[in-house]
Formats: sequence, structure tokens, C-alpha cells
Amino acid sequence: MRDNPISPTVDFDADGVQHGFLRLPYSRNESAWGSIQIPVTVVKNGTGPCALLTGGNHGDEYEGPLALLGLAQTLRAKDVTGTVIIIPFMNHPAFLAGTRLSPVDNINLNRAFPGAPDGTPTAKIADFFQRTLLPMADIVLDFHSGGKTLDFLPFAASHILDDAAQMARCRAARDAFNAPFSVEMREIDGLGMYDDAAESMGKTFVTTELGGGGSATPQTVAIARKGVHNLLIHAGILQGEMQIAPSRVLTQPSDDCFHFADTGGLIEFSVTLGDTVQQNDDIAHIWPAHYSGQPPRTIKAQMDGIVTARHHPGLVLPGDCVAVLAIEITTDLTKEIQC
Amino acid sequence: MRDNPISPTVDFDADGVQHGFLRLPYSRNESAWGSIQIPVTVVKNGTGPCALLTGGNHGDEYEGPLALLGLAQTLRAKDVTGTVIIIPFMNHPAFLAGTRLSPVDNINLNRAFPGAPDGTPTAKIADFFQRTLLPMADIVLDFHSGGKTLDFLPFAASHILDDAAQMARCRAARDAFNAPFSVEMREIDGLGMYDDAAESMGKTFVTTELGGGGSATPQTVAIARKGVHNLLIHAGILQGEMQIAPSRVLTQPSDDCFHFADTGGLIEFSVTLGDTVQQNDDIAHIWPAHYSGQPPRTIKAQMDGIVTARHHPGLVLPGDCVAVLAIEITTDLTKEIQC
Amino acid sequence: MRDNPISPTVDFDADGVQHGFLRLPYSRNESAWGSIQIPVTVVKNGTGPCALLTGGNHGDEYEGPLALLGLAQTLRAKDVTGTVIIIPFMNHPAFLAGTRLSPVDNINLNRAFPGAPDGTPTAKIADFFQRTLLPMADIVLDFHSGGKTLDFLPFAASHILDDAAQMARCRAARDAFNAPFSVEMREIDGLGMYDDAAESMGKTFVTTELGGGGSATPQTVAIARKGVHNLLIHAGILQGEMQIAPSRVLTQPSDDCFHFADTGGLIEFSVTLGDTVQQNDDIAHIWPAHYSGQPPRTIKAQMDGIVTARHHPGLVLPGDCVAVLAIEITTDLTKEIQC
Amino acid sequence: MRDNPISPTVDFDADGVQHGFLRLPYSRNESAWGSIQIPVTVVKNGTGPCALLTGGNHGDEYEGPLALLGLAQTLRAKDVTGTVIIIPFMNHPAFLAGTRLSPVDNINLNRAFPGAPDGTPTAKIADFFQRTLLPMADIVLDFHSGGKTLDFLPFAASHILDDAAQMARCRAARDAFNAPFSVEMREIDGLGMYDDAAESMGKTFVTTELGGGGSATPQTVAIARKGVHNLLIHAGILQGEMQIAPSRVLTQPSDDCFHFADTGGLIEFSVTLGDTVQQNDDIAHIWPAHYSGQPPRTIKAQMDGIVTARHHPGLVLPGDCVAVLAIEITTDLTKEIQC
Amino acid sequence: MRDNPISPTVDFDADGVQHGFLRLPYSRNESAWGSIQIPVTVVKNGTGPCALLTGGNHGDEYEGPLALLGLAQTLRAKDVTGTVIIIPFMNHPAFLAGTRLSPVDNINLNRAFPGAPDGTPTAKIADFFQRTLLPMADIVLDFHSGGKTLDFLPFAASHILDDAAQMARCRAARDAFNAPFSVEMREIDGLGMYDDAAESMGKTFVTTELGGGGSATPQTVAIARKGVHNLLIHAGILQGEMQIAPSRVLTQPSDDCFHFADTGGLIEFSVTLGDTVQQNDDIAHIWPAHYSGQPPRTIKAQMDGIVTARHHPGLVLPGDCVAVLAIEITTDLTKEIQC
Amino acid sequence: MRDNPISPTVDFDADGVQHGFLRLPYSRNESAWGSIQIPVTVVKNGTGPCALLTGGNHGDEYEGPLALLGLAQTLRAKDVTGTVIIIPFMNHPAFLAGTRLSPVDNINLNRAFPGAPDGTPTAKIADFFQRTLLPMADIVLDFHSGGKTLDFLPFAASHILDDAAQMARCRAARDAFNAPFSVEMREIDGLGMYDDAAESMGKTFVTTELGGGGSATPQTVAIARKGVHNLLIHAGILQGEMQIAPSRVLTQPSDDCFHFADTGGLIEFSVTLGDTVQQNDDIAHIWPAHYSGQPPRTIKAQMDGIVTARHHPGLVLPGDCVAVLAIEITTDLTKEIQC
Repeated sequence: MRDNPISPTVDFDADGVQHGFLRLPYSRNESAWGSIQIPVTVVKNGTGPCALLTGGNHGDEYEGPLALLGLAQTLRAKDVTGTVIIIPFMNHPAFLAGTRLSPVDNINLNRAFPGAPDGTPTAKIADFFQRTLLPMADIVLDFHSGGKTLDFLPFAASHILDDAAQMARCRAARDAFNAPFSVEMREIDGLGMYDDAAESMGKTFVTTELGGGGSATPQTVAIARKGVHNLLIHAGILQGEMQIAPSRVLTQPSDDCFHFADTGGLIEFSVTLGDTVQQNDDIAHIWPAHYSGQPPRTIKAQMDGIVTARHHPGLVLPGDCVAVLAIEITTDLTKEIQC
Repeated sequence: MRDNPISPTVDFDADGVQHGFLRLPYSRNESAWGSIQIPVTVVKNGTGPCALLTGGNHGDEYEGPLALLGLAQTLRAKDVTGTVIIIPFMNHPAFLAGTRLSPVDNINLNRAFPGAPDGTPTAKIADFFQRTLLPMADIVLDFHSGGKTLDFLPFAASHILDDAAQMARCRAARDAFNAPFSVEMREIDGLGMYDDAAESMGKTFVTTELGGGGSATPQTVAIARKGVHNLLIHAGILQGEMQIAPSRVLTQPSDDCFHFADTGGLIEFSVTLGDTVQQNDDIAHIWPAHYSGQPPRTIKAQMDGIVTARHHPGLVLPGDCVAVLAIEITTDLTKEIQC
Repeated sequence: MRDNPISPTVDFDADGVQHGFLRLPYSRNESAWGSIQIPVTVVKNGTGPCALLTGGNHGDEYEGPLALLGLAQTLRAKDVTGTVIIIPFMNHPAFLAGTRLSPVDNINLNRAFPGAPDGTPTAKIADFFQRTLLPMADIVLDFHSGGKTLDFLPFAASHILDDAAQMARCRAARDAFNAPFSVEMREIDGLGMYDDAAESMGKTFVTTELGGGGSATPQTVAIARKGVHNLLIHAGILQGEMQIAPSRVLTQPSDDCFHFADTGGLIEFSVTLGDTVQQNDDIAHIWPAHYSGQPPRTIKAQMDGIVTARHHPGLVLPGDCVAVLAIEITTDLTKEIQC
Repeated sequence: MRDNPISPTVDFDADGVQHGFLRLPYSRNESAWGSIQIPVTVVKNGTGPCALLTGGNHGDEYEGPLALLGLAQTLRAKDVTGTVIIIPFMNHPAFLAGTRLSPVDNINLNRAFPGAPDGTPTAKIADFFQRTLLPMADIVLDFHSGGKTLDFLPFAASHILDDAAQMARCRAARDAFNAPFSVEMREIDGLGMYDDAAESMGKTFVTTELGGGGSATPQTVAIARKGVHNLLIHAGILQGEMQIAPSRVLTQPSDDCFHFADTGGLIEFSVTLGDTVQQNDDIAHIWPAHYSGQPPRTIKAQMDGIVTARHHPGLVLPGDCVAVLAIEITTDLTKEIQC
Repeated sequence: MRDNPISPTVDFDADGVQHGFLRLPYSRNESAWGSIQIPVTVVKNGTGPCALLTGGNHGDEYEGPLALLGLAQTLRAKDVTGTVIIIPFMNHPAFLAGTRLSPVDNINLNRAFPGAPDGTPTAKIADFFQRTLLPMADIVLDFHSGGKTLDFLPFAASHILDDAAQMARCRAARDAFNAPFSVEMREIDGLGMYDDAAESMGKTFVTTELGGGGSATPQTVAIARKGVHNLLIHAGILQGEMQIAPSRVLTQPSDDCFHFADTGGLIEFSVTLGDTVQQNDDIAHIWPAHYSGQPPRTIKAQMDGIVTARHHPGLVLPGDCVAVLAIEITTDLTKEIQC
Repeated sequence: MRDNPISPTVDFDADGVQHGFLRLPYSRNESAWGSIQIPVTVVKNGTGPCALLTGGNHGDEYEGPLALLGLAQTLRAKDVTGTVIIIPFMNHPAFLAGTRLSPVDNINLNRAFPGAPDGTPTAKIADFFQRTLLPMADIVLDFHSGGKTLDFLPFAASHILDDAAQMARCRAARDAFNAPFSVEMREIDGLGMYDDAAESMGKTFVTTELGGGGSATPQTVAIARKGVHNLLIHAGILQGEMQIAPSRVLTQPSDDCFHFADTGGLIEFSVTLGDTVQQNDDIAHIWPAHYSGQPPRTIKAQMDGIVTARHHPGLVLPGDCVAVLAIEITTDLTKEIQC
């Protein structure tokens, strides 16, 4: 396979703090010899574990970028044992545009793995993570939030994996992150995800959903900051005590957790994130957008559960996911669960 | 002045409940003889006061449309003394697009008054309110929220007016609406506003800001529903007891309440809506979007106050209003205040 | 009022055949010192009446441009007594784009009269017709068809006018045009129309609707060619015999002739142009675009009549005019009729 | 190969009438967890042949969707022996946009076969037909018309196939459809077509061209309704008598049947669909769009034939297909013909 | 007339150096309470003349912004007698977009005077110059270049004015600017220009054209820097010696100086800026863009002259100005000349 | 591999002069059966070498198209020994749009080789050159210039190749072209380039960079005309004497020759094309676009050299290539050099 065209302006083998770019040539009408420059900070101090920390995989999710910019600005080499690679805006063009997908090629980076060195710019970025950055890492944290169109209860997540030891490592890392909620999940559609790329290499992998609506609050950013700090201690890269608070553990037992809109219109929620609902409770009403005086259609809960995600915008389209329910678990996480 | 081209499909003089449209001819490439159809519901029972209730003046604000759709579907003529005119989506094209401005002519309806019968479609809508609907009304309620780019503490508002009696009427109506917060304000830039159009005709006028971010919650919709119900009782159109809870009264004493960004980037708030800040406290940090490892610029409070509004999106542009502060007042609202 | 910035490259006072442009300076990003060049042909032979012939008032209507291009290429000065001014593409930017409105300023030229010399490009074009070209003319023919979104029975039309003598002149000219159908009509919304501008100056004015759907057929072009030739004979500018065939005379007695869609979807017509319908007959069904298995909504005839116009595209939007009915008349056209 | 991500909400194995969707996850900026929902109706009654009926392969062709919506709403399980799968809008995003290609990925579904489960949304739809739906079917009918840019004589078509028995089956099905014209053809560019995908699996396949211009008439919809009803009888799924009228059989003997524009401009046809022309007759004139007084270029017939297709829009671009001729055949269809 | 909504963050009456903004509220979908912030630098030292220096009137012209940014960064209050107001990007939104017109309202600021306080954003900017800034100034310099679509010989210009004394003042200022070429001109289309607004108030006004093509060179920027420095000395605001080199004086005696394209295509110039041509010499050939093997159309000189401006892009559209000629003059500039 | 869908309207084996098209079927919303027509001229006289001459590989580079249009119009078959294939606009859609990339699929033709017969339109064009045209050729000339965003010193170039004999042939052809500068280079990123496709087949290949900024001058077109004429003599296809002038030979010894912008803003160059700089000299300043009164960032020379390329537009984006340096060489070009 040909070489990836990205050239980093930092040296991943050098000790100290370096701020630079992953420079990707990007010839376009607006700049024949232009490039995409993805900011990167490397903090290294001798040998030790390597953590790869990313935000901005989707460009409209802000807790990760904020926590990682703060970390990049303050982390000192002397505080570190090993290496921390910080990439606050993994899909920098999407971040600059404030969009989930890259404006350059309209591609979702988190479904573009393993990528290709001669594909579109997003495919090239994926390939650089796949073949250059992920192999360097021992532990991988990828921040997500709901973006402009979803809201989430704040949680860290690990996946159900075939390798029980790896799965235990991932769960331990997730618990070290210690968000208010912790989710054990199996992705329905893991092919092409960065998560899957990392896990397939045996990495300890943690992801999050920390809010949404295309905004960030002091509360959700604090969760992110605490989480990444805890994780680096957990990994043995930083010293000190982890801050641990209670975290509720959730799971999504079947596809019934997903509630879709069959019609479009103006959405009115009957419930809020964190509410507990019973099967057949109203979740939301969808009002027609072209009339007054007509009744709304109602979306009812398909199962008992806790509202963990909801559609954010006031308008909804046919086929949109309106809400996701989950159930709280307290025992035996090793039993396989499905969603 | 020529006639307004809008033809209503309802009869404003007829008793009973009517659901129809304000039909505005709109010739365009996609439909030579097309029209904009603004839904309208009229509920009338004999003589009595007339309330004109509007949402969707800005197309990305949802509490008003939801409260008014519910009212339009449930209000019975026999419950009413007088007339209730309900227009849930005042700027229907903007509502359908989920945008503040009309996608048809890129105009802000709330700066387009008094409008013109031979102007752009938005100007024609303004003219129809100016010359046809407002003259019918005794009391006017126009719902607003923060839209996709602002978040507000939920409040109802009245303005400082030259006519003390009218101002007292407006304030009483605002207090009847009974949102969690109540604001007495003077608009900096009232020319072209629907508010000003209504007030200049001597109408009792109430407006609101009930949340934002381009979404609505069960809580903010409940405020809207209670408010409009209270207001109709206050106006003598509905019977029954108003539901009244404590409401904190705020004012904005000077232009120092507005905090602007001089630089663009990724915004991190230090405070949340409802927080109390002291002058020189940090309000927000703006991080550069092209680098890691560089410090943010900090926006500090120009005065003591309560955070009543904030920028919603994760990215901020130079010149954006980042936050608005207000102060709580308990005495003598008749003393003129400025912002 | 300031001068109109358009400079013609032809001399309207010179005898002979001239082909040139109406050159309108149009500074834009793509060309700082660019211009809009509206083709014009002038054929003049001494003194005599002046006919102003226009097509492309709307840019997606083709019978007029085709008939006038043919005339411009073949008309010889020696065949003419007086002057013929031929402007096949009145709104040349719209014609080049194949759109009803100008792509330059999104304005409908036929609602932009009297225009303004310092307005948008379309306003400047209107002003040039208003103050320069119309005053030259004795008889004015403006070709229209249905464009991309409407289909019409082929007809020539004159309006009901206050001046009975002028109205008789216009009707006589319309009858000389001798399309298969002839319509006597009063425009609902005449302000801003070229028709009104011409008639207000006392000109003999004829307009047409000759088909539609954004295409032209040999049959509809033949109607246009015969019509303009007849009209020039009728005006005394050309010699020879008019070709006269039977023409059915229609009128639109009330607003009930217009049938609007209250819902959007996929349209299925029950009737065709020229069909006779009875009140309450089905005119069209509108099927929902998001489901199979749901019934359509039906649009029924509001009156007895002949289908004279229909919506062309397969999809329909709320507020679109779906069909227009008219009734055939045989007597006393001087009695005022309304639509 | 990975699984196709589309999940149907209907059960293809269940008896009765079901209306549902093919739900395709479609993450995009406007909806992180959105989906494309392609309506589907399944009518099944025990064992028997399976017909797969599709419209909206191209989104601006309306006879198929209208005939199939009517069938989906009225077909009862008890009338059926076997299974009828009805998909009125195969490329639903293109249908909603009224465009030939999908607005989602700008891809022509009818050149996207066999598709891919991890490609663009259109590729995923093709793959679902290729691997899930086509294998269920015995007989396949795919409706086409000319769309917004072409007009056709109404015909049903079968292809020349290597397997004489399959070819005879297809021809018999085409003749059962019994459109006013029937065409036996070999596609120039069959790779990637749905037709080819179906035929390569040995299915009995019929396609149509039933009009065009982006509109549908009662006449062309009636052809479609009769054709699908006849075909279901022919297939043994419905009972009853087929309605059979005379049908003229056409063929396109060489590439000379296609007439292209070498220049752009305003097109004026000399002939109409169904006209018979001789070699060197004028087919159309193309007038320059920037001048009056210049002659048009003429496109002449390259062969004798019947006009079976023509360019619809009034403007034509260099390279557009202006017209297609065909010749009527009365004998020996088994002899191989080429176009 | 209502107040202009722009609020400066600098105090024009304060001594010293201030860098700030002209803040114009600009509510839009992307920012409900956003603003346009036009950078401004004021350098004041006691009483004395006031110079108003502007660049970026058109957003794709760079010599002015570069010279003025340098001046704003280096000018010290103590070096100045009076006031220097520096606005490097007069139409800041156009400058940021790199376009001639404002992307906000598609308006050419230099045809928008006198503007309006309640118009579009560009109209509001014009009004602020008209009613607030121009009245402060004694001498006004507005930098222009050719932008992305024109190239110019570098010149400073003054206009023919009715007031001989004012005209002499302007000419003297232009000569103090001392560009390689100096032009005495009368604008054909002065209405709406900033030039006319300034001159109508009796101001000493100088404008320039200093190159083009959407780029700037060290040579053209040096002309701009020297010119503004000389001008401030000439105005008595700075001390020191002006740098004066020979400057050739040109004039445009008639409309024949402008050469337009009647056809579009690929342009090949026969001459270069500064070349001398004789009437009927070839200026350029326009090759057809859709063919090889066809001859180009040739544009010939309508008069003798020097090539002072040319179309920059490789492609040309019908109606574009291809070239401008001028003639060199050495005597009696007081004689009125026209172009 | 399937056949390429392009059908030429010329016969490459026929003697004489033919002007025609490469016709590529291109079905799209605007034309269901449309095509891309790439003009081609073939001049053939018996047997002999075959030269393939192309311009418009990038659509905003004009010297090649102009030189080749002139050649296509004037070259006579009797003057030729062998074959000359002239394709002035290789990527015709990009040329018509005036853009580097194709507007059809947003692809850079010069990174699309070897292409694919079933890919996007640009991939199909590449495949036609790869499998049909290049195999016919002995010598290949592909014209380039800087386009809208780069400016170059005018040069012809050959590449460092593994095959010394081929490399010598290419260098000799480059020297025959005899531009003012000649460059011996190794591409950093040769995969997907037309250059590489031609060289991999053993062809004698020459490319150029002859100016830029999206314009052409009489001087740069003269270089192109002379170069192609010389090259055809050198190839033995034309008779006569080559015009040879001195040419300076340059090379780019390392990646230090490339200078990138790490920040965006307004660019001010300190040097001009052809200037000699020393390491650490200023090359350009980048001024912030949102402020006055702030200092620019400076880009300094990373090596000694001659300025051979520069960014053209006045605005620069982070990651843009600002300037390229090269060094002059006079000896031993056979020694391998790298950039």
C-alpha cells in the first residue's frame, strides 16, 4: 500500500512538549497547493505507556476539544511517564465548519476506517490513524457528544468484545474515566468506526457521549476534564489520585431502545433526559408543520427504560431517531447484552 | 397605499372555531402561481376582547409554536368571550426552514415592520399584521426564544413606554403570563420590530424569551402553555383562576450588559445561565481553532449581574454577543431604566 | 429621476434592419465591469405605427422567443411601414438560466414595473421599458406561456379596461392574433405588471399563454408565428391577408376558478387541459410522498368549467395552484366580468 | 461481504397486506442518527409467483409511482396468489427532490448496480435490491418515463438476451403489459443497470418509457395502471382477463437513431413525437441564445424513422441528445438487432 | 432620519492612537445577535486637518489594505498634526470573502451611497460614512485596484468637477500621491459612488487603481505606501519631504475607450498594459470554448491609445469589458474631457 | 476491464485534418441523456511519430489551450509527417467552469490516473487517455500554468526517471521546448499523475508551468506557441529550424524549498518571482484580517534560492503553500536530485 501523504511537523519520538500539525496536502480550486493542518500536541517523557487522545472526530461535538485544548496547553513533560498524543480536532475541516461530516468530502470520519492513502481527504486521515497513530498507542480515548442534532446523558462507554481480558481492560478504563453514567454496549454498526479499528488492534479503548445540541456547558466540560485526567492516572502516565464519584451503569438490551419518527413535523417531548418511562408512555408528539388545528402523532415507549438520548432540533424528519432508552444494570456485566 | 395581497381563508367576524390560512401569492421559479400559506386559527364567541397570539416570528424558536398548536387544537368557542386569533408560525417559511430569517428573502420579520404590500414576501406579511391583524387586537402576545444561536433564562417582558397607563397595562399582562423571570426593558433597536408596531397602536403587548438552542423542553413548553392560559384569563377572554408562582424581576441597566467576542474560535463558558457574577469574573474563554498549545482569550464581566443569555453554538465569530447580564430589581419599576 | 443606465447599440430612429443589444452595466464579483446584453432587432421603414414585440419576460417560456427570433431573422425593412422593435428575451438573464425569475436579483420582471434606474438589474430593465421603449410604441405584444410549472390551453388575452375605446382596440388586436382560445380577463394582481404599464399609457396591448411545461412544440410555435404576423398586418405595419381560424372565447367569472393545494405530495390529474368538468367532479388527487398504502386527498371542482391551466410538475407543494377553470362565452363581452 | 444495513419494517414471508419501510441508516449533518425510509407494500397470499414492482428508480418520472400507489392502496391479499412487492419510490430521496439522481450522493441508481453494502446510500439501496429483493422475485417490472429532460412515446420494452427462452418470457411479459408501443432493444450501456441485474439472475423483466417532461397525464397513468394489472394476470398472481389493444412494435437498428446537439441554444423542433421522418429532414433548429438576427443550426435526420424521444427543455446544451428515431417492425423479432 | 446603528469602539475626539471597530449589529441565521466589526485606527494629535483613508471598498483589491495596515501599525500620535482615520477594510465582509461585492447582501458598496440607516448592512455602512465619517474629513483617499477580474496600469485619479477650486485641490492631492500614472477623469456613472459622496461635500478626494488580478506585488504596494505618505505630508498632517518621481498623465476622451466582448470564450490578448495601439489594431481574440478548429473573433482598437486596463480572467463573458484605452496628455487639463 | 464509454467522433487512423469530440455520456439531472464533449483535432499524414498535445488538464490554466487552439486551426496535413493529436481542454468541464478541479465530480484529473471506465466522469476521461490515447503516442506534451491560486516563472520540465535513456529523451524534448527556465524535477506525489502514466509507458514526456493567476499574457502564450512548434520539429513531425534562446536550468534540492502558511490572513510579499533570496530573508508577511494595529507574521526563507512560485490571491489560508524556491544548476544533471 502506498505511503500516507500526511507529514507531521512534530517528532513522535522526541521528549518534551511539541505543538504542531498533521499536514495533509489538499489541492482544490481555492488553493492548488493547499493543505489541511490538523493540530497535534505531543508530550513525551522517556519510555512508558502511550495514550492517544482525540476530540472532534465529529466536528460539532465540543467537550472533547475543550478538555484536550486545556490539557495541551498545561501538560508538562516532567509530569508524564511515557507519551500523550493530543489531537483536539481529529476531523479539523469538520470542526472548522461546525458540522458532523467533513465539508471537504461529506464523509463521516467515524465510518471511514480503515481509510485509504489515496482516497478522499477524510479517508487519508483515517488511514493515518489506522497505520501510524493507533499502532503507537496503548490506550485510546475518543471524545464524542451528541452534536447539533442529538442530546445525551453524559456517559463513558466500553464495548462488548470477544476478548474477555481486553474487554475488562476497556471497562476498567471507562470506569476510571468516571462519567456520571457508564454504558456497556455493542455497536450495531461497528464497521468503519474508529472504535472498532482501535479495538481490533487490541488497544484499551474508551469513548464518551457527554451532552450535545452543538454546545457545551461548564458541567459537561468538567466531566471531560476530570475523565481524561483520571484516565491518564489509570494508565500510569500521570501520578496522583483519581477523583471518583458514583456512576450509574446502563445498557441497551434490544433494538426496541431506538424510537424513530415515521412522520416529520414539530416535535414536543413529553419526557426529559434521565426520566424513567414505562412501556406505552408518551415520549413525544409530532405536530404537522403546515396546519393549525390538527392533532399530533404520538411516539410511545416500546419498553421500560431511562431516556438516554433525544433528538435536539425543534423540527424532526421522517426516519430520525427521536429517543433512545436504556436500562440500569447493577450486576454481572460479563453477560453479553445486545442493542 | 395598495391592498395587501394576502387573502385569509377564515372569516375573522364569524363565531366558532375556524382553522385556515393566510394565503400570500408567491410566484417563484419552483411554482409560477404558488403561495405561502400561514396557518391561522380563529376562535370567536360574540363580542369581547380580542387577543392576537403569535409564534414563529423567528423560525427557529419552538415554545410559542408548540403552545399555540396545542391551544388551537383544544380551544372551544363556548369557552371564549371575544376572539382569539392564533398564528403559531408567523413567518411560516422561516419556520419550515428552521431558520431565524425567511429563506425566501433573507429578511428578519421582526425588523421588517411596518412592511409594505408590494415588498418582499416578508414585507407583505409584516404589512398584513400592521394594517389588518394588529388593528383587530386588544392584547398581543408574541412568543420568542433564543433560537439556534442563543440561550435565555425563561422570561416574559414588557417595555418602558412613554404612556404610563399603557406601560402599566403591559406590565400587568406580563405579570399575568408569570414566567419564572420577568424583564422590564427598553429595546436599543426598536425600529422595525413587531413589538414597536403593536405598542405604537396602544395595544397591550407582551413578549417572551423562553429558552433557546433551537430546541424546546417539556419545562419551557409548560411555561408557555401556562403563560398563554393565564394571559387569556387576565384579558377576560377565558374564565378561571390564573396559576401564579414567584417570578424574579430583572433589568438591564446599561450597554455594559452586552459582552461581545472580538475574536473567533471555540468558546468555553465559565458560567451558566442564572449564575451570579461579579465585575471582572471570567465569563468565557475563546480558544483558537487552528492550533493546540496556545492560550485562549478571556471575556470578563463588565458589571455585576445574573447571566440571562449566552451564545449557544460551540464556535463563536468575531462580533458575536457572547453573554448578557442583568440585575435583579425589587423596587420602583416606574423609574426609567436603560440598556 | 436619474437616467437609465442602459445604452442601446441600435438607433431606434434609423431606417433599415439593425441587430444589437440593450447594454446594461452589471458590476459583479465575476466581472467588475461586466454588462447584461439584451438582444434587440429594430426594423424601420419611414413613418408609421410602432410595434413593440417581446418574449422572455419570464425566462422559461419559449414560444415568444422562437417566434420573435424567426421574425428578427427574416423581416425586411422594405416589407414594413413604420417600426417593429423585437426583443426576444426581455429578461435575458432569466432566459439564459431557464428560470421564471432573474437569477441576478431573484425578481419577477412582470411584477417589477415601473422599475427604477437605480434599482436592481431587473428594476433597471423595467425602467427602460417604462420610460424609453413603451413610449415609442403604438401596439405592444408580450408573449407568455406556462413556464416550467404550469400548462395552458393556448390563448391570446386582452384585459377589461376602464377606457372602452382602448379596450375595444385591445380586443380587436387579440382577435387579430387569433389563437385557438381568446380570453377576456381582469388581472387580480395587476400592479407591477408590464401589461398594466402598457395599458396605463393607453397602448393597444395583447398578451398570450401558449402552452407550458418549459418546452415548446411545433404546434404552439406555429400559433405564435401566425399570431405575430396577423398582428403586424392588423397594425398596418405589414401588408397581406391575416390567417383567421375559429377561436373559442373564455372568461373566468370568479375566484372559484382557481384551485389550490392545501397539502403537498405527488399529483395525479383526473382531467386534462380542455376537458369540461362539473362542480364537485374530481380534478386531481394528491398522494402522500412518504408512504404507500395511504389514500390521496382529492381536489374537486368548485364550479362548472373548462380546464384552462394545470400544475405541470409531478410533485405539488402546499399553496400551489393546481388547476384553473374558465367558462366559454359567446355574448356581450362588454359586460364587466371578474376573476 | 458484509450485511446490507437496510432493515425492512415488513415481513416478506407473512401473508396479508403490509405497508412499511425499507429503513436505511443515514447519518448526516442534519440528523446524526437519521434514516432514509423507502415505502414498501407487500401483499402475500400463500405460495405462488412473486412480482417485484418498482417506480421512482429515477426521481422525476411519475407514471410508475402513481400506478403503484394506487395498486398498494387497493390490492387485497385474497385477490392474490403468491406475492406482490410494491416499491413506488425505489430511489426515495431522488423522488422527494424531484430529480433523476439522488440528492444524497448525486448517483444514478440505474447505473449503480450491483451496489455495495458499505458504499454511498444509493449503492446501499442497489445492494439491497441485488442481494435481497431480486432473489425473491420471479417477474420484475421497473417503471420509467422521460423525466424532466426527455419525452417519449409511451412504450414497454424487453431486451435482446442471450438466453432465447428468457428473452421469449420477457417479450411475452412486455406484450402482456400492452403499452401503445412495444420496443425490443439492446442497451448500449447496460452495465450498472437494474435491468441487467435482474436479467442476469434469469428473471422475467419488463421496463417502460411512458411519457416525460417531469409530469404525468391521465392517459399515461392509465397505460401504467392497465399494464401492471395485465402483467399480474399474465404472471398468474391475479385472476381475470387482460385488456389488450393494438401495440406498434419498434426497434432502433443502429447508433444513427441518436441525434446529438453540437451546439447549445434555444431549440425549435420541426417534428413531434410519433411523426415519421425521412433521412435529411429537419428535426430541429438550435437558435443562438445571445443574439437576435443570427440563423439557427439545423439538426437533420440521419435515417428514416419515427420520432420516439425528444429533448424536453426549451434550452439545449452541447452534447445533449436532441431526438431518437426508431423504425417499425412487423416480422421476425428473433433476429438480433442492434442500437 | 433615524440614527445609524453602527457604534464605534473608538473615540474620534480623543488624542493618541486607538485601534478598534465600527460595530454594526447584524442579526442572521448564524448569529441572532451577531455583528460586523470593521477595524478602524484613529491617530490624533490636537487640532489640524483630518484625513480619512480607506481600502477594501471592494473586497478583492489589496494594495490599499496593505498600505493602510502598515500605516496603522506604525503611525505615532506625536508625528501627526490633526487626525488620521484609517479603515483598511471599508467593506469588511467583502474583504473577508475576497469578493468585490458584499457576501452579506450582494451589494457593491461603491454604488450604495448615500446609503440608509435602515437598509441592508452595506447600505448602513455607506450611511455611516456619509453622515458620520465624511463630515469629519478634510481630505479623503480611497484605494482601489482592479480586483479579481481587471488589471490596471497603476494610477491615482482625480475627477472633473464643477468647482474649479475644488478640482484644483483634488488634482494637487492626486499629484502629491504621485503614482506612475495620473488620470483626470469624469465618471460615467458617478451616482452612488463614494467618490461622488465625498466630492459633493467639497472634500479633497483622491482615488487610485493600482494593479489587479486579485493579487498585490511588492511594486504596487510600494506605490500605495509612498502615495499615502506623500498625501499626509501634502495635507500638512505629517512633516518631511514628499518623494516625487515622474508621472504620466492620461485621459479617456470618449466612450470609444471601452471595448466590450459581444461573445464569450477564451481570451487571448494581442497587447499588454502600457502598450500603445493604433485604431484597428488587434486588441484581443476570443476563441470559442466548445470547439477546436474554429477561428476566434477579434476585438480591434476603436481609437489610438495606451492600454490602461484589461480583463484578467482567461475566460470572458458576453458584455464584459475587455480593455480600456486612454491617451496621454501634457497640456491644459482645465479643458473639459469626457469618457 | 469493461470498455471505456467515450466515443470519439474522429478517426485516429485517417489522414487529413479532423476536428471533432471525445463524447462521454453524462446522465445528470439537467440532461438525462447528455454528454461531455471534449474537443479534439487530429492532423495525420501517413506514417511517422505521433505527438499527443494537451492543455486544460487543470481548467484554470490558459497558455496551453491558447497555443493548442491556434495550432489546431492552422496546422495542415501536408506539413506533418506522422500524427498530431491536439486536445486543448483535456478536462473540458473544468475548463468551462474556469476551475482547477472538475465541477462535475470535484476531482483533480491530474491525480485521477489510471482512471476507471466505470468511475466518475473524470475517472472515465483518465481511463480513455490511459488505455486509448497514450498508447498511440510517441511524445507527449501536457501544458500547465499556475492557475488561479499560484504564479510561476515560465518553465518546461522533465522528471528524474529510473530509465536513463528515457530520461535523456525527456530532457532533450524539454530543452527543445526551450522555455525561459527549464526544471529537472522528481515529483513528491507522482501517483495518480498523468505525467507518471505517460512515463510509465516509456513515452517521451514534457510538462510546463508557464505563468498563472488565472490569466495569460501575450508573452506566456508566445512561449507556449514557440515551445510546441519546436517540439514538433524535434519529434520529426514538422520540418524547419527550432527557435532556441538561452534557458536557465533550475532544481529543487529538498523539501525546504516549499514555504507554508501556518496562519491565515492578508499576504504581503517581500519578493517577486525570479528574485534571489538568502536563507532567513523575509519572503512574505501575513497580516491578520480582523484587526488593524496588530503586527503581521513573517515567513522567512528556509534556504538560499530563486523564487520560482508564489501564492497568487491576496488572502491566504492556513496550510497554503506561500512560495517555492529553487536553485540554479549548471552542471551534471545526471546526478540524482530530490525535492
